[in-house]
Amino acid sequence: MQHLIRKNILGLSPYIPGKPMEEVKREFGLKQVIKLASNENPLGPSPKAVVAVKRALKQINRYPDGSCFYLKNALAKKLRLKKENLIFGNGSDELIDIIIKTFTEEEEEIITADITFLEYSIISKVNNRKIITVPLKYFRYDLEAMKSKINKKTKLIFIANPNNPTGTYVNKYEVLDFLKDIPRHVLVVFDEAYDLFVDVEDFPNSVEWINKYNVIVLKTFSKAAGLAGLRIGYAITRPEFIRYLEKVRQPFNVNSLAQVAAQGAISDGKFLMKTRQLVLAGKQYLYAALERLGMVYVPTVANFILINTPLDSTAIFREMLRCGVIVRDMKEYGMKDFIRVTIGTQRENERFINVLRKVMRK
Amino acid sequence: MQHLIRKNILGLSPYIPGKPMEEVKREFGLKQVIKLASNENPLGPSPKAVVAVKRALKQINRYPDGSCFYLKNALAKKLRLKKENLIFGNGSDELIDIIIKTFTEEEEEIITADITFLEYSIISKVNNRKIITVPLKYFRYDLEAMKSKINKKTKLIFIANPNNPTGTYVNKYEVLDFLKDIPRHVLVVFDEAYDLFVDVEDFPNSVEWINKYNVIVLKTFSKAAGLAGLRIGYAITRPEFIRYLEKVRQPFNVNSLAQVAAQGAISDGKFLMKTRQLVLAGKQYLYAALERLGMVYVPTVANFILINTPLDSTAIFREMLRCGVIVRDMKEYGMKDFIRVTIGTQRENERFINVLRKVMRK
Repeated sequence: MQHLIRKNILGLSPYIPGKPMEEVKREFGLKQVIKLASNENPLGPSPKAVVAVKRALKQINRYPDGSCFYLKNALAKKLRLKKENLIFGNGSDELIDIIIKTFTEEEEEIITADITFLEYSIISKVNNRKIITVPLKYFRYDLEAMKSKINKKTKLIFIANPNNPTGTYVNKYEVLDFLKDIPRHVLVVFDEAYDLFVDVEDFPNSVEWINKYNVIVLKTFSKAAGLAGLRIGYAITRPEFIRYLEKVRQPFNVNSLAQVAAQGAISDGKFLMKTRQLVLAGKQYLYAALERLGMVYVPTVANFILINTPLDSTAIFREMLRCGVIVRDMKEYGMKDFIRVTIGTQRENERFINVLRKVMRK
Repeated sequence: MQHLIRKNILGLSPYIPGKPMEEVKREFGLKQVIKLASNENPLGPSPKAVVAVKRALKQINRYPDGSCFYLKNALAKKLRLKKENLIFGNGSDELIDIIIKTFTEEEEEIITADITFLEYSIISKVNNRKIITVPLKYFRYDLEAMKSKINKKTKLIFIANPNNPTGTYVNKYEVLDFLKDIPRHVLVVFDEAYDLFVDVEDFPNSVEWINKYNVIVLKTFSKAAGLAGLRIGYAITRPEFIRYLEKVRQPFNVNSLAQVAAQGAISDGKFLMKTRQLVLAGKQYLYAALERLGMVYVPTVANFILINTPLDSTAIFREMLRCGVIVRDMKEYGMKDFIRVTIGTQRENERFINVLRKVMRK
């Protein structure tokens, strides 16, 4: 059997899907489970997105608009870009695959951090590309060290900014210094899934650089817009790059409901601001509560917090699960003794703290 | 700029997206446009699917269940298979990509027909695989000729059954003869997107062979179930193959609403039967009407008919478009003087015939 499988696939770790919340409830006999594990919007989806989806339901027998015509026009206008600067994906995950397929040959190299969004590495390996991972420095992307790994074979660099799972960021001065030294045969992808939650002045406006440097910016409707379940993200770059990315994209990759939902969310500034305020206030509450518990965390500019656990993180994760609070054990990211918690509603944050306190006492 | 693009991508034809129906209406100043171009279900989506989607709307801020837990259980039960026999994709399109990535190295070869579903060839090229296309014989897959193209480098064979765009099929005797001679290093993929519309006794039940031969069967919810806009298809094969396909699949490839909609559609036998009856009756109507017009068509077991046009097919396509009837010009499939029309509602079929008559007279 194995002789039929491609060599690079044989060696991959199998993907172990998480159980649905409903299954967690059933397994542990719980009535109320809160999920603070996937950095979703705790307020639900954008209401304007939901209205738009309802209106489109009768047409789901029709194939999606392959060009995302209306959404692309609306988003280009909103961002003050040309529609030729944009391409949409079935989540940013798919755009990572499309970017790798468009720009890299099998023997070329891709650089990212060692502790970051897992898909850069997984999708590189699936496509039989070589991935070079550079250790974080104080939980942050080490741009100087990454620069030193560039050679003739380097083609792509993935930078999650803010970084998941650490919540840290690289600032505009660091990024500009970095970009100035990048050779012309290399492209830099900034994945800014969490940009709406950033509350610092020196965060880069990376879209400014798409014409000057080989820069691609990834954004998503999964987080702030609350559309994770519908799968839609997009990339911003030069039209010359978009043209080739479009050749690699499958014609109907973005479903119809995701398209109308995203259009709804774009116009839902009120919801986005409410979400941002909730996250910023929740962050202050959690910082103070964690300090009272004597726990060490990494200051974040995203909607989640990386927390150091004095005990084995898997034990804490499991104990919290039993109490109906799902957080993320960071062992799968290669970190020992860390959990990641999404900033939820005030009620969820309080329950998280109460359960954490209880579990730590045990 | 071009030095940054992967070589196999540079040569690809750019994907030219069709205009949305709304844009066609605007451009030609039409009030009513009927679309018989994409083999969609003219009755709309499965009503049970729509109900299921409405119920799930409030949860679209949550990531989809990566394992399609409930859908997989329901479908396995329905098909009397194990859930380990199934994998879901963002439409069958994505499964084609996953299959190619899982089983083929860059230097290996993929065989299909010359006039068939375009994505086998496009996705092979995007992944830098060599695609060998074998001419149809009397509009049908020529299995003997395909067999003769197998060599040591052959890894995959894609067979659309029924074939799109011809509507023809290969029968169970032919397929069994074919499978018996396939070497053990080769996998055969049967794409059965149109299986619900088949009305012949000797159509193969290919799922029977998944344990005996290296067979993968593709199915979709896009056609009979009326869920093209939501993007969901699935593959059936041995658990040992599924295990590797799962490693290549992105964790959240199938959106939440597609999952619940598909579950709804599975239980909507009434709708599926109504759709089938509509298509079979519409086929008889169209056959008779085309014969009255003196037009030659290829007998079909699918929900579309390939029609030979005595005049240039692009001229006819454009003229019909101006009259508000969208069909498919077959030039993009490499056929001269053919159009493909989806069997619609009786009203749509009549309008198609009326417009075709008018256009032919000109």
